[in-house]
Order: sequence, then C-alpha cells, then structure tokens
Amino acid sequence: MSQVLGIDVGGTKIAVGVSGADGPEVTARERLDTGPDALARALAAARRLDRHPAAVGFSTTGVIRDGVVRLSPNVPGWDGLELPRLLAEEFGDIPVAIDNDVNAAAAAELRWGALRGVSTGLYLNLGTGLAAALIVGGTVVPGAHGAAGEIGYLQVEPGEPAFADGHVPLEERVSGSGLARRASALLGRPVTTAHLLTHYSQAEGPDEVVRDLVTQALRLLAVSVANLCVMVDPERLVVGGGMMGAADVIMPGLLAEVRRAVPFPPEVRQARFSDDAPLLGALALAHAAI
Amino acid sequence: MSQVLGIDVGGTKIAVGVSGADGPEVTARERLDTGPDALARALAAARRLDRHPAAVGFSTTGVIRDGVVRLSPNVPGWDGLELPRLLAEEFGDIPVAIDNDVNAAAAAELRWGALRGVSTGLYLNLGTGLAAALIVGGTVVPGAHGAAGEIGYLQVEPGEPAFADGHVPLEERVSGSGLARRASALLGRPVTTAHLLTHYSQAEGPDEVVRDLVTQALRLLAVSVANLCVMVDPERLVVGGGMMGAADVIMPGLLAEVRRAVPFPPEVRQARFSDDAPLLGALALAHAAI
Repeated sequence: MSQVLGIDVGGTKIAVGVSGADGPEVTARERLDTGPDALARALAAARRLDRHPAAVGFSTTGVIRDGVVRLSPNVPGWDGLELPRLLAEEFGDIPVAIDNDVNAAAAAELRWGALRGVSTGLYLNLGTGLAAALIVGGTVVPGAHGAAGEIGYLQVEPGEPAFADGHVPLEERVSGSGLARRASALLGRPVTTAHLLTHYSQAEGPDEVVRDLVTQALRLLAVSVANLCVMVDPERLVVGGGMMGAADVIMPGLLAEVRRAVPFPPEVRQARFSDDAPLLGALALAHAAI
Repeated sequence: MSQVLGIDVGGTKIAVGVSGADGPEVTARERLDTGPDALARALAAARRLDRHPAAVGFSTTGVIRDGVVRLSPNVPGWDGLELPRLLAEEFGDIPVAIDNDVNAAAAAELRWGALRGVSTGLYLNLGTGLAAALIVGGTVVPGAHGAAGEIGYLQVEPGEPAFADGHVPLEERVSGSGLARRASALLGRPVTTAHLLTHYSQAEGPDEVVRDLVTQALRLLAVSVANLCVMVDPERLVVGGGMMGAADVIMPGLLAEVRRAVPFPPEVRQARFSDDAPLLGALALAHAAI
C-alpha cells in the first residue's frame, strides 16, 4: 500500500500527517503552531514523517492564483508565496496537489464522508473564516481564479464596504472570528464564538445587544445559505467547521430557511469530519493524485 | 447536412425554426402566440417545417423535474405537463433535448456566441423573468432538480416572503415584469420596463418615487450579480435578455459593482443573441444532441 503525505497550513496551526490505506485514518502526524517560516517548518515535519510518499496533498488558507498564494493576509509571509514552485522543488517528481482548506475539506467529505456519491452539492465551512465549496459532477469546482465558494465576500447591504475597500462583508458578520470580534467590542472583554453561541443565542442571554448580534448573524447565515442553494440547486448541503460544535444552535434556523426559500430544498447534513477536516482533505487530495 | 428543429415555448410567444449548418442561422421559422394548447400548436408548426429532423431541441419556461414541467405558472396547462413523454411520442427515435429557456440561451452563447470557449461562466437573463445559467467545464450546470440558476428566488431582505409563500423575491423587484408591475402601481397607469429604463433612470426622471424604484432595482441587480460572481468565480459574465435594449442604463452600474465587490472580477460582455436567444438555444441543444 502506498503511503501519502498531507500538509495543512491553517491560520493558527499546521498539521502534517501520513496515511496508508485510502480512508480517513491518519497513521502518524505532527502538529505545529503557524507563524514565521510556516512552510519551512511544515516541510521539516513532513521529512520526519515520510521522505518518499506516493503523493502529497497540500491544504492552505487563501487561494492559489498565477502560481502564488492570494487572499491570505493572516499567515506571515504567506500572501504572495510561490507555493507550487517551492513544493515542486521539495518533492521533485512526486505528484503534489494543492487546494484551499475548505475545498480540501470538501474533497475529504466527497471521498470518505457526508458528500460521498453526491454529484451537485455544497460544502459550507463555518469556522474562523466563512467559505464554501461548490461541487459539480462529483468534484470541487475551482472557479476561474481558484476563488469559487469564497462566500465571505458576499455583500449583505447594497453598497456597503466590500472587497475593493478591504472588507469581507459576510465573513465579518457571521464567521467565528467576525462574530467574536464584534461581540468582544460590544462587551468590552474578549469572548469566543463558542461561548456566544452557547450563552447568547437564547431569549435569556445575559446581554440583549450581544444576543441580537448573534441572532441576526445566524439569521443572515441562514438566508445566505438558502440563497446559495437557490443558485446551485444542490442535492445535498453539508455543513462543517469549528462553529458546528454548536450545531444544535445553528442548524434549526438554517434548515427552516432552506426549506422556506429554496424551490427544491437539498438534503442537509452535518459534516463527518471536524477539526481534522483540512488535514484529511490534504490526504484526500494526495490519494486522488496518485 | 442534417437539418435540426428547434422549438421555444415562452411565456408570451412560441417560436419554431429549423437550421441546417451548425451556426446561429434559422433557415425557416414560424412564430405563434402562447396560449391554450401551446404544445399541440407548437408541434403542428414543427410538422409544417420538418417532419424528420436529425434532432430536436426544446426550450421551455419552468424546469423539468421528474418528467414534468415545474415552476411555470404563466403558460396555461404547462405546469405539470409531461413534456418529455409527449415529445418522445411525437418524435419517436429522433433525439430530443429539453432545457429551460435561459439554459438554452446560454447553450447558444456557448456554441456560437459570447460564451464560446468559456469553461467557468455565468449567463444572466434580464427579461420578463430573471434567471441565470451556471457554466462549469464548458457546459450548463442543470442542478440536482433542473433548477440551478433560478436566481429570481434569491431573497433580498432576510425573512421576507419567499418561495414557500408563493413569492419570487428578486424577480419581483428587478425583472422586466416585476419592475413594470411595481411602477405601474405607483403611477396608476401601465408602463413598460423599456420606458422606465429610458425615462426614469436619471436624476431628471419625472416622478421621484418611480425613479427611486428603478434606481434601487438596478442597484440591487448589480449587487446580486456581484454576489453570484463571488460564489462562482467565473472567467466571463454574459448578460442578455430583453432588458438589454437599455444596456447603456444597466451595464455601467453592474460593471462598477462587479469590479468593487468581486475578488477576481470576470470579464463582462453583452450577449450576442437577444430576442432569438431561446429559439437559437433550442437549435443549439438540437445540434448538440445529433
């Protein structure tokens, strides 16, 4: 059985792992914090795990465009990095597949998880960031510039600050990072999105202004997801990402809105994979590249 | 050269035509008003033009789902019609391809027009109705239930009446029919969308309330289209449909918004085909089905 190598460089952590069989099991792994020299440290970890894998899958924040990483401002030295060239130098003739973390997670769900067998589908990642993957013909659609599914950039109020103004309108409102930042500003102390979803999503939440912020964010998320389903007409929508720790708070409103607003509502499922999704995605990309 | 037959049953008119060469020329055609017995009359016209075409393309309002027409309330007797079975009865062994009018128009643009050579693209139809076609891998994506691109159902204000409430939120605001209906109600007399776009889209338009209605509709259209581009990341966006008679009024705001809000703005072009688009689309479907 050939062993493949997966590398995931995320906004806060790096995960490197290997797997033998074509399944969602990681036989050995290392985990590092993201920071300066992220690529060099990730590659050093990769060398410790397997110097001659059958293929390499690489999951990254941002998108690859014209041979460089774009739309990834949060990892030092990452935006503008010539990732494909550097990986080719490292791995030589070994096949290397690169995709963004959310497309990679969708690839793992397609290969081993909740999107298995789906032809037209949507994968929604509710994590630190907000993004989706569009699936057509059983594979993830990259888009013309690698940016299909970057729904954080969706505009909510006509004319509001958007991409050209340095903003990521929907992500700033409903992602894990966006929600925590806005609520922390209102409360005058740091709160996590997990805490917000548990304590501020119900009528008895302690602070009315923060409660409204959370309620409106969840409503906006539900409407945006329903709109994506209108556009794509998926057979299944799969929802993953760190915010799904509070799936019981998020899913009922989302389901209701999809059923109300979409002519042919898709089946809605929770993702099979959570924290591991981008690393498993990298491994799925690697298995597909053998 | 084999001759193919195209049939287009639209909300107000039926067009039937034949073409020999694989190009956007119609060598003979008939045009009828839509009304009762639309299919029988369309087929009678088809028989007069060619009893033994090499293939048949059929462009229809609504979508085909489980063998019947759905989402087509405006043609008498059309919603629920078993169109695929009836066409198979009529044409026997001759290949028949059916799609909705907007997907068919996109097929014509892909085969002979402004979408030629495009892999990931969007076709936007600004007509009596509002709809789009999503192009991936150089072909129109049907969606899981034939309803991909039915963007008239996009929700504009969270929680507003939507599909389940019998509404088509975005179409009611920005389509030709929706805009004319709303402006006519405000003015107390019937106006066409062509008239509105010419006379009410500028600062000196005669009625401020109607002017605001038109301005807001165009702005909402621009934002919605930018959002579609964010989701799909197309290399090219092609805009067609009857409202494009006022392209000079519609396009500048749309272009500006796409450039402002989309990380990688697509090339934006006017469609090659206008009134004829669904019939040419039916012929394109037929040529592809030979």
